[in-house]
Amino acid sequence: MSILFTDCRLLLRSEGVYSVMDGFLGVEGAYIDYIGKDRPKKGYSTEKRMGGALLMPGLVNAHGHAAMTLLRGVGSELPLQDWLFGKIIPIEDRMIADDIRWGTLYAVMEMLACGTTCFADMYSFTLEETEAIEDCGIKANICSLPLICGDPTLEAHECDRILKAAEYHRAIDARGEGRILSDFCVHSEYLSTEKTLGPYLEIARELGARIQIHISETEKEQLECIERHGCTPMEYFERSGALDNPVCAAHGVWLTDSDIEIAREKGVTVAHCPSSNMKLASGFAPVKKMLDMGVNVALGTDGCASNNNLNMFEEMHLAALIHKGDGREPSAVSPAAVLDMATINGAKAMGRPDCGRLEVGARADIVALNMNALHMRPALDIPALLCYSAQGSDVLMTMADGRILYKNGEFLTIDEEKVTAEFERCCGRLLG
Amino acid sequence: MSILFTDCRLLLRSEGVYSVMDGFLGVEGAYIDYIGKDRPKKGYSTEKRMGGALLMPGLVNAHGHAAMTLLRGVGSELPLQDWLFGKIIPIEDRMIADDIRWGTLYAVMEMLACGTTCFADMYSFTLEETEAIEDCGIKANICSLPLICGDPTLEAHECDRILKAAEYHRAIDARGEGRILSDFCVHSEYLSTEKTLGPYLEIARELGARIQIHISETEKEQLECIERHGCTPMEYFERSGALDNPVCAAHGVWLTDSDIEIAREKGVTVAHCPSSNMKLASGFAPVKKMLDMGVNVALGTDGCASNNNLNMFEEMHLAALIHKGDGREPSAVSPAAVLDMATINGAKAMGRPDCGRLEVGARADIVALNMNALHMRPALDIPALLCYSAQGSDVLMTMADGRILYKNGEFLTIDEEKVTAEFERCCGRLLG
Repeated sequence: MSILFTDCRLLLRSEGVYSVMDGFLGVEGAYIDYIGKDRPKKGYSTEKRMGGALLMPGLVNAHGHAAMTLLRGVGSELPLQDWLFGKIIPIEDRMIADDIRWGTLYAVMEMLACGTTCFADMYSFTLEETEAIEDCGIKANICSLPLICGDPTLEAHECDRILKAAEYHRAIDARGEGRILSDFCVHSEYLSTEKTLGPYLEIARELGARIQIHISETEKEQLECIERHGCTPMEYFERSGALDNPVCAAHGVWLTDSDIEIAREKGVTVAHCPSSNMKLASGFAPVKKMLDMGVNVALGTDGCASNNNLNMFEEMHLAALIHKGDGREPSAVSPAAVLDMATINGAKAMGRPDCGRLEVGARADIVALNMNALHMRPALDIPALLCYSAQGSDVLMTMADGRILYKNGEFLTIDEEKVTAEFERCCGRLLG
Repeated sequence: MSILFTDCRLLLRSEGVYSVMDGFLGVEGAYIDYIGKDRPKKGYSTEKRMGGALLMPGLVNAHGHAAMTLLRGVGSELPLQDWLFGKIIPIEDRMIADDIRWGTLYAVMEMLACGTTCFADMYSFTLEETEAIEDCGIKANICSLPLICGDPTLEAHECDRILKAAEYHRAIDARGEGRILSDFCVHSEYLSTEKTLGPYLEIARELGARIQIHISETEKEQLECIERHGCTPMEYFERSGALDNPVCAAHGVWLTDSDIEIAREKGVTVAHCPSSNMKLASGFAPVKKMLDMGVNVALGTDGCASNNNLNMFEEMHLAALIHKGDGREPSAVSPAAVLDMATINGAKAMGRPDCGRLEVGARADIVALNMNALHMRPALDIPALLCYSAQGSDVLMTMADGRILYKNGEFLTIDEEKVTAEFERCCGRLLG
């Protein structure tokens, strides 16, 4: 199957600079095989006229908990610890595999409709989640068996999450023709102990696994870690050896300068989650400083209960605005930096070096954006338009690995009506 | 003409608390004449089944410069003074009435599509603007002849804006069956002088006119005013007598506690413009403090060149999030407070006490919102959904004074194709 896109604009990236070219883009199988101003000589089996739409890389949601769609709006206006332990976890404790299946598939629809082609996910019932989504065509890095083991009396051999980690990893990794990857996950410093962390990391190291972590999300977490261990969470994880694997650390709101230096040195990605950090009153992550110091910063929605949606265009908008306001620097966190965060930086963090940009030889993870929307005129400065004006609803088409998954409001690989009905049934059971 | 809305949910407000009721809403002429759970006994000429949509009050955009749609994206990433004097004003100096006509009508489409039924506007060529929009059905408070007279050598009789202010006011006020109101406007402390302000205010006082002002937008403005006059802009305008008229003061980022106390005492509305204040790196307005101290806070988009769109749902989202992040208080600026800011508080500021809420006897300024969008499920907490999850694109219908102006992507009173073509022509001339 090959597709040639015509009558479109292409958002290209060269050495960190974005430009827009009117032209043609060819897709052969899962890859982009042509980009040019002129019609390619090669023939394609399908030709799609795009009506002047902008083709841009699929968005990469680098941190989230997809099935939390089920909990959208639960516990509004509470600080993180009360929200998490008082409202969220009591409902999560009642969740069964069925909830995760439908909650995740529902989340996938929401993400595809707003241009996300790849997402990181940290939740439970991950085998069932993988089964539910492996055929729908979206890409996901699933934390196969997250280490959430905060009981200091527990030894490693008493924690089944450690014993089964390798087994789960092998069961999930590379499913769906490689679209699903398995990550290891240490929930956080405060929900892990040295006794359980060591053995878990040993397995991660053997497998060379990527690790997802929540890091320095709140001041409380930061201060309590210093009290418990005499060091920051970043330092704690560095000492434990966690950062010797590829790590994607969510939030990083309270990172110190020396934490940021560790992140840079160890190649840790920080997944910035602006909506969630504001909604839970955690604060503003030092994104400008991280970018200036050379850290790979990605972007994530976090879960729906602290956002409350999965719209990466909103996160882009927030990432572009809030650091200008917070640091009183109008040039802080440029549109190009935000586009990088939402695409190529996330792809890198997720072990997908051939994703996150439009380039010959890269994966055909492509979003078509409506440039005829009222708020997209005049189209003077397209990277700025994408960050300050574009809406998730401007997405006309979402393609991953050369396969169209969403187009003009329709899901091509998911039965929207059925998933919505099952999702509402699960919500009713959990929240009713 | 009378309309009965059925199969809908109604966002109601009682003593500052929002609730949602499944029911019926009747419109007779320009007013709401029925709200109830049961079908009214009275017959209506038209009945509209709304498919479970939420009816909510039309949004009130309390500060902006509509025709700046023409300048969307101009001068990204610059601080206010460089952006304004270096990029924006040189283009504005080339604007003619034709640009304002089409730029404003284009802005009106953008606002209607996102649920705005009433907007405040501070710009130029206001007679032509009024003519352009008076028949389209949207409501607007137009600054008929803004005082922008920062030349300290100029006497009042040398400033034609002062001499003609009453004449313009009478020519504009109450046009379009009262949908268009004329406001007076003092651009700012830094673009006015005592010599010109006094005579202008005298006319405003005689007419009992509302006054729109930019106030304490940047730290620079605040400090320079203190240097020039030994007092803050709020104090300066209090001393000058400006605050004896009803005032809507945009921004208020740098208001001191004592400024806020003056605003409360004098009944000054502060129009919060979160996108613009972040984009131009002005900072975060003390919105929580203003609300706590009892100031009437409204919400505005500001102009497109510093936003870059006219989507009030985005401003609601930002207003609900950024003060939680900035003040590290998860309960700061609640969804109910944000809904008030975006509706009833703005209506009050604009001298429209019968607008801004769904209530029998209130104006039928109504937005129908799609509750079947993926990001609107589960609908646990609708005020929270409206602030954290809803999108401008969820607007199905916008009605003002009982007249449907926008429905399912179509404008019923504006020729979208013609306006867009003329708008693009003007953009080409100004920016080309």
